Amino acid sequence: MANEKTLRKHAVSIFRAALKAADPVEAVLRHVRLDGETLIAGKRRYPLARFRRIHVVGAGKATAAMASAVERLLGRRIHGGIVNVKYGHLTKLRRVQLNECGHPVPDENGVQGAQRIAALVQNAGEEDLVVCLISGGASALMPAPAPPITLEEKQATTKLLLKCGATIHEVNAVRKHISALKGGQLAAMASPATVISLLLSDVIGDNLDVIGSGPTAPDQSTFADAIQILRKYGIESDVPGSVRDRLHQGAEGLFPETPKPGDKLFQRVQNVVVGSNLQAVDAAAKCARSLGYRTMVLSTSIEGETREVAGVHAAIAREIVNQKRPVAPPACVLSGGETTVTIRGQGLGGRNQEFVLAAAMGIQGLPNTVILSGGTDGTDGPTDAAGAIADGDTISRARQLSLDAAAFLCNNDSYRFFEPLGDLLKTGPTNTNVMDVRILLVGSPQ
Amino acid sequence: MANEKTLRKHAVSIFRAALKAADPVEAVLRHVRLDGETLIAGKRRYPLARFRRIHVVGAGKATAAMASAVERLLGRRIHGGIVNVKYGHLTKLRRVQLNECGHPVPDENGVQGAQRIAALVQNAGEEDLVVCLISGGASALMPAPAPPITLEEKQATTKLLLKCGATIHEVNAVRKHISALKGGQLAAMASPATVISLLLSDVIGDNLDVIGSGPTAPDQSTFADAIQILRKYGIESDVPGSVRDRLHQGAEGLFPETPKPGDKLFQRVQNVVVGSNLQAVDAAAKCARSLGYRTMVLSTSIEGETREVAGVHAAIAREIVNQKRPVAPPACVLSGGETTVTIRGQGLGGRNQEFVLAAAMGIQGLPNTVILSGGTDGTDGPTDAAGAIADGDTISRARQLSLDAAAFLCNNDSYRFFEPLGDLLKTGPTNTNVMDVRILLVGSPQ
Repeated sequence: MANEKTLRKHAVSIFRAALKAADPVEAVLRHVRLDGETLIAGKRRYPLARFRRIHVVGAGKATAAMASAVERLLGRRIHGGIVNVKYGHLTKLRRVQLNECGHPVPDENGVQGAQRIAALVQNAGEEDLVVCLISGGASALMPAPAPPITLEEKQATTKLLLKCGATIHEVNAVRKHISALKGGQLAAMASPATVISLLLSDVIGDNLDVIGSGPTAPDQSTFADAIQILRKYGIESDVPGSVRDRLHQGAEGLFPETPKPGDKLFQRVQNVVVGSNLQAVDAAAKCARSLGYRTMVLSTSIEGETREVAGVHAAIAREIVNQKRPVAPPACVLSGGETTVTIRGQGLGGRNQEFVLAAAMGIQGLPNTVILSGGTDGTDGPTDAAGAIADGDTISRARQLSLDAAAFLCNNDSYRFFEPLGDLLKTGPTNTNVMDVRILLVGSPQ
Repeated sequence: MANEKTLRKHAVSIFRAALKAADPVEAVLRHVRLDGETLIAGKRRYPLARFRRIHVVGAGKATAAMASAVERLLGRRIHGGIVNVKYGHLTKLRRVQLNECGHPVPDENGVQGAQRIAALVQNAGEEDLVVCLISGGASALMPAPAPPITLEEKQATTKLLLKCGATIHEVNAVRKHISALKGGQLAAMASPATVISLLLSDVIGDNLDVIGSGPTAPDQSTFADAIQILRKYGIESDVPGSVRDRLHQGAEGLFPETPKPGDKLFQRVQNVVVGSNLQAVDAAAKCARSLGYRTMVLSTSIEGETREVAGVHAAIAREIVNQKRPVAPPACVLSGGETTVTIRGQGLGGRNQEFVLAAAMGIQGLPNTVILSGGTDGTDGPTDAAGAIADGDTISRARQLSLDAAAFLCNNDSYRFFEPLGDLLKTGPTNTNVMDVRILLVGSPQ
């Protein structure tokens, strides 16, 4: 099998399979379906006759499409609902109202939408079903500072935490305790209604309490933890007084804690991860196998400095070519997750393009070897490309165009390296995000 | 199989198997043996009756032990010889003389030894066999500046090249052309004698022309290339006049080129890589399989920033525990090569210890998971440890001792992190070096 041209075509097909699995409509319809008048979602069956009304709420960058999938499925059975989406993310819906708001910086529209969502689920009764849609961006798109805390005060607190180097788990522990909806509180508000939460995960590990700050998931952290975190970083006296007051009053029991694992309210709540990096990589693996590749998923939780991670992938490529392991050709190695780029240059690019540039240097001269990396959101960094593709000949082809790979990498200028080579991968925005997919193909020697 | 205690014991056994394969005596005796009066080396048979005399020459940090192995095998059949070793690396030999010299900075002893080696092989005739022993450190231990270039002038040239960022291949191309022995010239001098070169490789890829600067291997580079490299970095007028003169006179044909691939003199030369990272990792894999692990060799050419490479290994560990892939437990993932550490702190450690520290943070909380990294030379960085070992519980054990893993990593202080935990891996110096071996074990759930 396979010269570089075929390998490149296959790599793109495999990436397309991952994108398809991450598509919000596909993702919802893969996990939710109707069997007559029974709704099957995840592992549970819901006889629709049980419910007087079905509400749809949620927030996130992919939720306009997710809502359209739910409407396609349930149509006029839906009573109504409101979903917060990013500006410009409107789509025609019949029952569910889309509310455009600010992202990544939350705005007043977001706050008002969140309040309407809160009111809606608060009014839901035992005979109601709430379908909650959550995807990447939900934290910013459904801002619900617990009164009297203002949006600005909440944002200032987050900023302080990030600045002093708090981990994302620490930031979330604090945020959940100054929010009215995060950390399972949306589910608590909806109780005693039945809740099906459909989540499209953009985080490593797909932890339910992390995706969109977990509005329908149990929360392990406490008011006391939140205070401890502020103290750990010495910023307890720097955060707004309203924040400090709420945390202390909460710790004294004046506000209810976020609902904890084992709380019986979650008996009526099901969280279903409908799309994730794992599912996208699984779909890619299935496609690769159908194309005849011995396929290995390295890991779906790859993080770290992009060029270094690329170096490890290139080292694996060399081992496959030279030693026919860890998988013998025709081989496909897949990995998922999301790497970072420490920007040192002035160039144009994104982590996926930079990954492929660094990997191209590491597979230079290898026969029958192709590497692709793409962001499932279709927009890698501030560019119109999703990623790039390269083979063992890319570096010498570039040299013929007087493009010095090392210099472009040094300047974080991967876009301008791949553009003249015609090796950018362009999909257009996909309105979804389950992080990145990397594909290494090594064909059999001719 | 396997709680952490067993996994740790197994990891150490697997590392010991790698060390055994890298041992210079074992390495030589694995590739060279006697069948009656026929010497079998690598893929060729040498009836000893053909040879009037057998000479042993060479240089490198492991060559004292390699020479003892050759003496054990050939004993009084050896006519004599001289091998340059590091100060203190003396061992009792009967026929071969060991000559102590400077390393890593070459000295006059080294030059004199190299001259005696040159004289010896030059005098070898068609009926002579020259056994050449090469291992890491050979470049410095067998310094042979081509007269009238002095050792100081040669070193100054190397220094200039390294300073301006020349690649190791560029440095070697220049060095080979101002040397009398490197780049195949030792083999050319020995012609028409038969040469068996036994190489213990400390470089990624085991390229014959790179190990010890390839004294018995064909050389692709030319005098013209060497001049080009000096021009590329704008240092042609900075190098000593003697160096410039030789390169130009060589380019004009006044000196013979280094012997090129296809040169018929190599018909009587066999280069045998007797030890290498690849062979050590293969031995480790064999041991792991015998202990019942599903074993995967990720790559034997892993380079890059240590903590980032560790992050990828940790991501693979998470995938094995959570998704039972790329190999299902009981799983062993092996990798080889040599990473680098960008030193930012003031601490004590080495790349293997830092690898395990960073990996320990990435596998924190994972059950049945152990990771080990060790340098085959037994001395990781400026420490008395070869590396370290950790499991999913290491970070929380450290916390109980008030050791903050992130702070130790930040300060490149891995030795002082693992010492109080009792998790340093100590083997003592091994007098060999085939780079590093990393071992990840994931046991089946209890």
